[in-house]
Amino acid sequence: MTIETVAVLSPGDMGHNYGIALDKAGFRIITCLDGRSERTKELALKANFEDVGSIDDVVREGDLILSIMPPANSEGIAKEIAKAMESTGSKPHFADCNAISPKTSKIVGTHIIGAGANYIDAGIVGPGPGTRERPTSMYVSGPNSKPVMDINGPHIEVIDLGAEIGKASAAKMCYAAITKGSWTLYTTALVAAEALGVSEQLHSALKQSRPSIWADIEKMLPRLPLDAGRWIGEMEEIAETMGAAGASSHFHRGAAETMELLDSTPIAKETRENYDKDRTLQQCLGIFAEHLPVKSASKN
Amino acid sequence: MTIETVAVLSPGDMGHNYGIALDKAGFRIITCLDGRSERTKELALKANFEDVGSIDDVVREGDLILSIMPPANSEGIAKEIAKAMESTGSKPHFADCNAISPKTSKIVGTHIIGAGANYIDAGIVGPGPGTRERPTSMYVSGPNSKPVMDINGPHIEVIDLGAEIGKASAAKMCYAAITKGSWTLYTTALVAAEALGVSEQLHSALKQSRPSIWADIEKMLPRLPLDAGRWIGEMEEIAETMGAAGASSHFHRGAAETMELLDSTPIAKETRENYDKDRTLQQCLGIFAEHLPVKSASKN
Repeated sequence: MTIETVAVLSPGDMGHNYGIALDKAGFRIITCLDGRSERTKELALKANFEDVGSIDDVVREGDLILSIMPPANSEGIAKEIAKAMESTGSKPHFADCNAISPKTSKIVGTHIIGAGANYIDAGIVGPGPGTRERPTSMYVSGPNSKPVMDINGPHIEVIDLGAEIGKASAAKMCYAAITKGSWTLYTTALVAAEALGVSEQLHSALKQSRPSIWADIEKMLPRLPLDAGRWIGEMEEIAETMGAAGASSHFHRGAAETMELLDSTPIAKETRENYDKDRTLQQCLGIFAEHLPVKSASKN
Repeated sequence: MTIETVAVLSPGDMGHNYGIALDKAGFRIITCLDGRSERTKELALKANFEDVGSIDDVVREGDLILSIMPPANSEGIAKEIAKAMESTGSKPHFADCNAISPKTSKIVGTHIIGAGANYIDAGIVGPGPGTRERPTSMYVSGPNSKPVMDINGPHIEVIDLGAEIGKASAAKMCYAAITKGSWTLYTTALVAAEALGVSEQLHSALKQSRPSIWADIEKMLPRLPLDAGRWIGEMEEIAETMGAAGASSHFHRGAAETMELLDSTPIAKETRENYDKDRTLQQCLGIFAEHLPVKSASKN
């Protein structure tokens, strides 16, 4: 079967960019906006999605379903989809593209496989397709990940990691462990320095000795609160992944705590479209420090 | 009083480089090698230290004592010095230059201040003086940190952070939180990837998307086990510092665990002088992964 219609659930920050890239590549793109936020509806409209109305219709009309959502919702949507597969008799391919641990991906997969459909473990590395020059990578693994290879194109680079469910998620988790782990590590040390009254010395030492880290700090920290809320769960999934591999799970418990801190600031209420780009790093650190102490992350 | 004789306890990796820089700057440099390792004795000889024999003699002959040792020994040596001050009646200035939390520095200070001497909180940022072009920074704070300003020179840049004991340690802790924190974070994710069979994808993604992080990984990870043993305690001091500031202490509990993992490998038995520089990053990761799972760090 050739893939002609791709369903994306849901067309949020990452999902709507997938829609734009797939639309450009000639696929019919569908979704279900029932119960979605106004912002997601706007993003879906911008991406040219067709709202087919119900999950049953998504399953009937889609050849491939991409689940792109916060980690905490990944199992719930898979259950809904599995139920719709059973009631409609349609069995499209289902790829979980969420930032979840290999273990969670295997659990999500049981619902889809239990409904008699093909489950593909997938993991997205990088920003939304089309938001930069080079393509966004998408790892896939599982007994039959070929259907996802059909969406390989100029903005989406699909990389096959073999037959084992969990490999794609593992690669995604380890990559995000470093990127989001380091941003939250920097935030933690900088906000502690702010609270301890040594920001000036720390900033000066980093500028001089670690210019590439300083550049990353200046670029990432002021916008981190915008995404922090939906990344708390991702950090918990990474902690689980590290622990299951026998490595320390503490770093990403810390990352979850720091994401919670950032999510508790007023900056977290802004969006990528409307956030205050003139706010300086120092102003952000002042705001973050006002919200100390961190609360213990829920899954510790 | 002008500083003429500087005592360094002990002249190990960092301490002997201090000796070399101070010797070049015209100071008389003394130490006490009683009970020290063969390696420390060799380093002391190389640096031209005069072994005065006992702690009492260090206190009698030194104008300024620099305590440069593993964090766990910082209070013990301060107690010994305080005792010697009381028995000899000599009260040289004492600077604790160790990687300890502001809280630990205050505790160390009570012994020196209790003996009637001047206590200076200090923190060293960067490699040993003279091992690179620009000077190594040394933060100092306390009611009278002027005596340490005397050793300011081409290889040692003394930076005064004011009258409060703890400020210098805080600045040092926050800086090391980022440098050693990020090296251990990278190690954790890379060793997990190795265990999960996704090293190839992770390395390739990092090389492409995070070249400066990849360069740091290639430079630092193979030699990290050489210092890991003496850095476990430093990571625990950082965890305490982060927690006391209200920030997450988890990152550096993880860093301590990963330092312990590295210290449990055979590479940890090599030294800076004799380690195998031809061992590749991939070989190192293989060795690290063989020593998983991490043990829970002692102070968790």
